[in-house]
Amino acid sequence: MSLIVTGTIGIDTVYTPDGQQRAGVLGGSCAYFAAAASHYGPVRLVAAVGDDFPDEHRDTLAAFSNIDASGLETRSGSKTFRWSGKYLDNMDHRETLSTDLNVLAEAPPRVPEHFRDSSFVFLANSHPAVQGDMLAQLADAELVVADTMDLWIDSARDDLEKLLGRVHGLVLNYDEAELFTGKKNTVAAGRRLLEYGPRFVVVKKGEHGAILVHRDGIAALPAYPAEDVVDPTGAGDTFAGGMMGYLAREAAGGKISDPGAFDTIRRALAHGTIIASFTIETFSLERLSALRPEAIQARYDEFASMMHLR
Amino acid sequence: MSLIVTGTIGIDTVYTPDGQQRAGVLGGSCAYFAAAASHYGPVRLVAAVGDDFPDEHRDTLAAFSNIDASGLETRSGSKTFRWSGKYLDNMDHRETLSTDLNVLAEAPPRVPEHFRDSSFVFLANSHPAVQGDMLAQLADAELVVADTMDLWIDSARDDLEKLLGRVHGLVLNYDEAELFTGKKNTVAAGRRLLEYGPRFVVVKKGEHGAILVHRDGIAALPAYPAEDVVDPTGAGDTFAGGMMGYLAREAAGGKISDPGAFDTIRRALAHGTIIASFTIETFSLERLSALRPEAIQARYDEFASMMHLR
Repeated sequence: MSLIVTGTIGIDTVYTPDGQQRAGVLGGSCAYFAAAASHYGPVRLVAAVGDDFPDEHRDTLAAFSNIDASGLETRSGSKTFRWSGKYLDNMDHRETLSTDLNVLAEAPPRVPEHFRDSSFVFLANSHPAVQGDMLAQLADAELVVADTMDLWIDSARDDLEKLLGRVHGLVLNYDEAELFTGKKNTVAAGRRLLEYGPRFVVVKKGEHGAILVHRDGIAALPAYPAEDVVDPTGAGDTFAGGMMGYLAREAAGGKISDPGAFDTIRRALAHGTIIASFTIETFSLERLSALRPEAIQARYDEFASMMHLR
Repeated sequence: MSLIVTGTIGIDTVYTPDGQQRAGVLGGSCAYFAAAASHYGPVRLVAAVGDDFPDEHRDTLAAFSNIDASGLETRSGSKTFRWSGKYLDNMDHRETLSTDLNVLAEAPPRVPEHFRDSSFVFLANSHPAVQGDMLAQLADAELVVADTMDLWIDSARDDLEKLLGRVHGLVLNYDEAELFTGKKNTVAAGRRLLEYGPRFVVVKKGEHGAILVHRDGIAALPAYPAEDVVDPTGAGDTFAGGMMGYLAREAAGGKISDPGAFDTIRRALAHGTIIASFTIETFSLERLSALRPEAIQARYDEFASMMHLR
């Protein structure tokens, strides 16, 4: 049950409210997603960087033994995507200081031949037409989940609606669900989004958790109640990585027959929640690089106990 | 394990974003709390109204067989507290249109002699000095929980700090916890509040659920994912009513030995969550008046299943 992620690799500079900062760290949806998913099993990565991409970041990715980065295109003469942002006081809002699209403004990467049999697909945030092109290269896809953002809802709505007709799941933020549907109530917004085709919609609410709106049911999960949040960058992508990694692992292990079923997705959200809670403890992939399976399991068990009500 | 609530009874006029309104309906923290708690067992109510308090509202309270309203003082020549408010689009924010304190500006009600042996005490929102006076009349109190609001944090902080040294639990809203402590992170704010004396703090986040910060642990619960919210008035008070009603019932039934223990409070929060989810389905106490134990149990079971992760 091979898992693939298509998206961005970036070089980030992050400022946090307490005055900390990190310049030039490894970031991007693909990097975060893959690092998270790799704690559950193998994950294939498709993205493009420029020839300025530091060896140090390449080494960081290579140190995740479950990440197959052979789909990382390095383009000579191009520059890597760069993003810089500053978090505001409550950590749930941020200000983008600069965005240099660089290689993202060029043609998207191709899915390598040896990745084309991938069965679990995560289309990390990018132009929905690009996401659609990626998906067209993956003929064996069994479970396809896409992320999106306000930019595409505003500027490429037709493409996004088309994409929604081709995916099983959609992941997006709270305010984006409202922007797309005009509905303030999260459950109502999710139900409206299902009408475009997906089997389920996951609405991410940051520190307030996530809501799953599935054709077969509704579930709400809180975030893990973290006290020390250093850098929330990548929380959403690692949430998705934990979710998809869990689904691919359980399906590969024969533990689930329908990876898109309500109860399976619900549990997958909890795994995403736990992985994301580690991500935000430090900058970049620092915590995920050092993360041991025992730590994930211990926190998952704690989370399960916290919500055990029978 | 007799449960008592002290607070306000009011006459509310509520406007909702979809253009609905109800004028002159029964409201107030005491009314909502008692209606919710009554679904778990007997509850004593202490509040004052004027001689304009309609028989219709008296009948509504009397129809809750578990509410002992003999602590409701009717003051001749006084007028009942009136509040009018309008909910904004997302239902989690409201605008107060008018507040007529009326009887609330007079001396607070007294706790009747036959209520003074109450063991479970909920001090619904009012001036912390008044809450302290109420508590002083309840010598047998075993578990005392207080609610508060931004007004007292701003205007009566010393009294509020004193009160916190005398209660076991504090219930307050998300933004109020931040206002009191200056801490944006809910867990950090809760921990800071514990330093004033309580054993636990419950931070209410409306549609985003609640966080329990207890000396012995932390728990987060989502709200019940409701799609049709008609009127959120009273959600917080009925949350507290379900919570305290559950604690009093379980202690009375010998099912718990320490009603202030972490795991017990955590489950109590879930009961509060479920009761509150019914409250917001209609205006005033309409849904709680018609609520059957089977409906509460069914929704609690659904909620438990939604979060079952083992």
